[in-house]
Amino acid sequence: MIYLDNSATTMPEKAVADEIYRMLTENFGNPSSFHRAGLDANAALRAARSSVAQALSCESEEVYFTSGGTEANNLAILGTAAALGRRGKRIVTTAIEHESVMQSIDELERQGFEVIRLQPDKEGNITKGQLAEAITPDTILVSVMYINNEVGTVMPVDFIRKAVKKAGAPAYVHLDCVQAFGKVPVNPSKLGADLVTVTAHKIHGPKGVGALYVKKGTRLVPRVFGGEQEKKLRPGTEAIPLIAGFGKACELLGDVRETEKRVAALNAALREKLCAIDGVKLNSPADASPYILNFYVPVFMTSQTVVQHLSSQYGICISNGSACAKGKRSHVLTAMKLPDKVIERSVRVSLSRHTTAEEIDAFVDAIKETTENYK
Amino acid sequence: MIYLDNSATTMPEKAVADEIYRMLTENFGNPSSFHRAGLDANAALRAARSSVAQALSCESEEVYFTSGGTEANNLAILGTAAALGRRGKRIVTTAIEHESVMQSIDELERQGFEVIRLQPDKEGNITKGQLAEAITPDTILVSVMYINNEVGTVMPVDFIRKAVKKAGAPAYVHLDCVQAFGKVPVNPSKLGADLVTVTAHKIHGPKGVGALYVKKGTRLVPRVFGGEQEKKLRPGTEAIPLIAGFGKACELLGDVRETEKRVAALNAALREKLCAIDGVKLNSPADASPYILNFYVPVFMTSQTVVQHLSSQYGICISNGSACAKGKRSHVLTAMKLPDKVIERSVRVSLSRHTTAEEIDAFVDAIKETTENYK
Repeated sequence: MIYLDNSATTMPEKAVADEIYRMLTENFGNPSSFHRAGLDANAALRAARSSVAQALSCESEEVYFTSGGTEANNLAILGTAAALGRRGKRIVTTAIEHESVMQSIDELERQGFEVIRLQPDKEGNITKGQLAEAITPDTILVSVMYINNEVGTVMPVDFIRKAVKKAGAPAYVHLDCVQAFGKVPVNPSKLGADLVTVTAHKIHGPKGVGALYVKKGTRLVPRVFGGEQEKKLRPGTEAIPLIAGFGKACELLGDVRETEKRVAALNAALREKLCAIDGVKLNSPADASPYILNFYVPVFMTSQTVVQHLSSQYGICISNGSACAKGKRSHVLTAMKLPDKVIERSVRVSLSRHTTAEEIDAFVDAIKETTENYK
Repeated sequence: MIYLDNSATTMPEKAVADEIYRMLTENFGNPSSFHRAGLDANAALRAARSSVAQALSCESEEVYFTSGGTEANNLAILGTAAALGRRGKRIVTTAIEHESVMQSIDELERQGFEVIRLQPDKEGNITKGQLAEAITPDTILVSVMYINNEVGTVMPVDFIRKAVKKAGAPAYVHLDCVQAFGKVPVNPSKLGADLVTVTAHKIHGPKGVGALYVKKGTRLVPRVFGGEQEKKLRPGTEAIPLIAGFGKACELLGDVRETEKRVAALNAALREKLCAIDGVKLNSPADASPYILNFYVPVFMTSQTVVQHLSSQYGICISNGSACAKGKRSHVLTAMKLPDKVIERSVRVSLSRHTTAEEIDAFVDAIKETTENYK
């Protein structure tokens, strides 16, 4: 199998799986218990929190574990609205966010908030000018994805803090960094973020655990009510084995800038070879993240069929858009105003630090053969 | 180590840990993806859902996976209030629920709902008469724990449906069955429940996954917004390794009535031997679940110190109340109107299907020695 769908999920590292197994079999206590089994579990929880904090260049107490990116995005957005809703009703976001951000904000719109959805250009870019214009003194939340999950465009997220300051807005800056974390340095202070969403399963960790960075002093109203865990911001018995696996995945990240260089070389080769195929058109801009490439496949099949065909005929796994939007027409390509034909027949390839040049070549050959046979 | 804190969490079965490891290393796809890796993950998701459904004697499509019991309780309670809030404002519950039920309902009270909290007698019992009297035609939710997590009292939950019908109330019946599932048969239709909370880590499965049974036709408003997962009632990439582990734990439950008989024999011996110790007083009633025994330890140390002492001196793990309420005074013993001295010096022992007579004896010896040395 050639797995090129790393933006949907990644294969956990063996060391991550081993750590999870060890926790399940040797350190299974409830971290809230006062006996040995509890204290050991609590120590593992603290160690994992510290690993995640280190990967985010933040303090341990700013890391709140959740069940994943979707829950973290919901907590950031709905939690901010509940905390700051009396200071303003305006929320600024983009038209190309992840489902969990879009739909949380849609919910707030139903509750009476005013939502500004910035439209991208045809390469999926949002400009600083658009952000500066949209952020007003009554804006309470700006939520923007750092690296777009479908086309890989990199948003000017480090500009948001400046725009918020300039407008004198009470707004919290929330960055969905699910696709950015582990690919580029994600340092909330440097990015000027109050809230940052990350998840384990996009960085070769397990599915079922994520985290929300909450800058010290940020007021959020919880979405879940219960016990004392996660300082009551996110109660429930901690998913210790997964959390420990998340910590391990963070430790294994290495130098993300070095890794990016290697992936960028693969991406450049991929782009060059794809462009040599008659009719193929790239949807991702030249300066997109090298981990993601979205392109139009000139065949009479729709993208979902192309995905299935590549899987069954070549053992290659890619995707037609976000896994979370299963089967729905891409709102990202739609917002980029690409022609219907392109939207219906575009696919996403997403690389990982383990992707090889041979896999890229095999993929390009498969696309070439497919376009020849089904044009 | 002698682990007698199984109501806080249980040690996962080796077969559960193996299944999770297998998923992490061999079946890591995103169940929403259309390629082979996705389809394989989806098949595992379906199989696990079917295992949980079988353990609950319900349909697969009535099982919604969550991150655990706390999230399932929140979804049931807050989701019902949002769905039925226009039909009535009254919620009936008890004063001895789990933190996640209590605090979700407290939140609804802040939003203007009327909350009736039934008070237990001094053995922790709530009567059918109390339920019948409390449930009125404008009641939209009745939420009661099947087996109490601190003292093990068994609530007359199968009577609630009758009382709701008699009152002509639109109420959904929500049962927190976290401590009951795997200990007694939990069959939502037979119990007359619309919503049932269960979790994996109390039945030798992993921490980080639970489920909410939602009877077909029940309307719930989601608490989390995002993708298409769990029919949009609980979006977010599925925690597949944990879900598969949960499925495996359900398969291993065996005949819960047979297991209960074995545990009941251990519990009877435990009670008899404890009562022979001068000054010990049982807080759990005679007809409580045999898995849980709460009792007063006649020493000058508080219960938290007793827990630490038993751990450090004897390698025995027990608890002083609910792990989720870490360090807080027990609201259950308080509601039972036990004397302050008893509330401060009571502990909870909780057995599992793996508990042995030798462990019980070692525990009783440790309690005997402790009471002699620290009385």
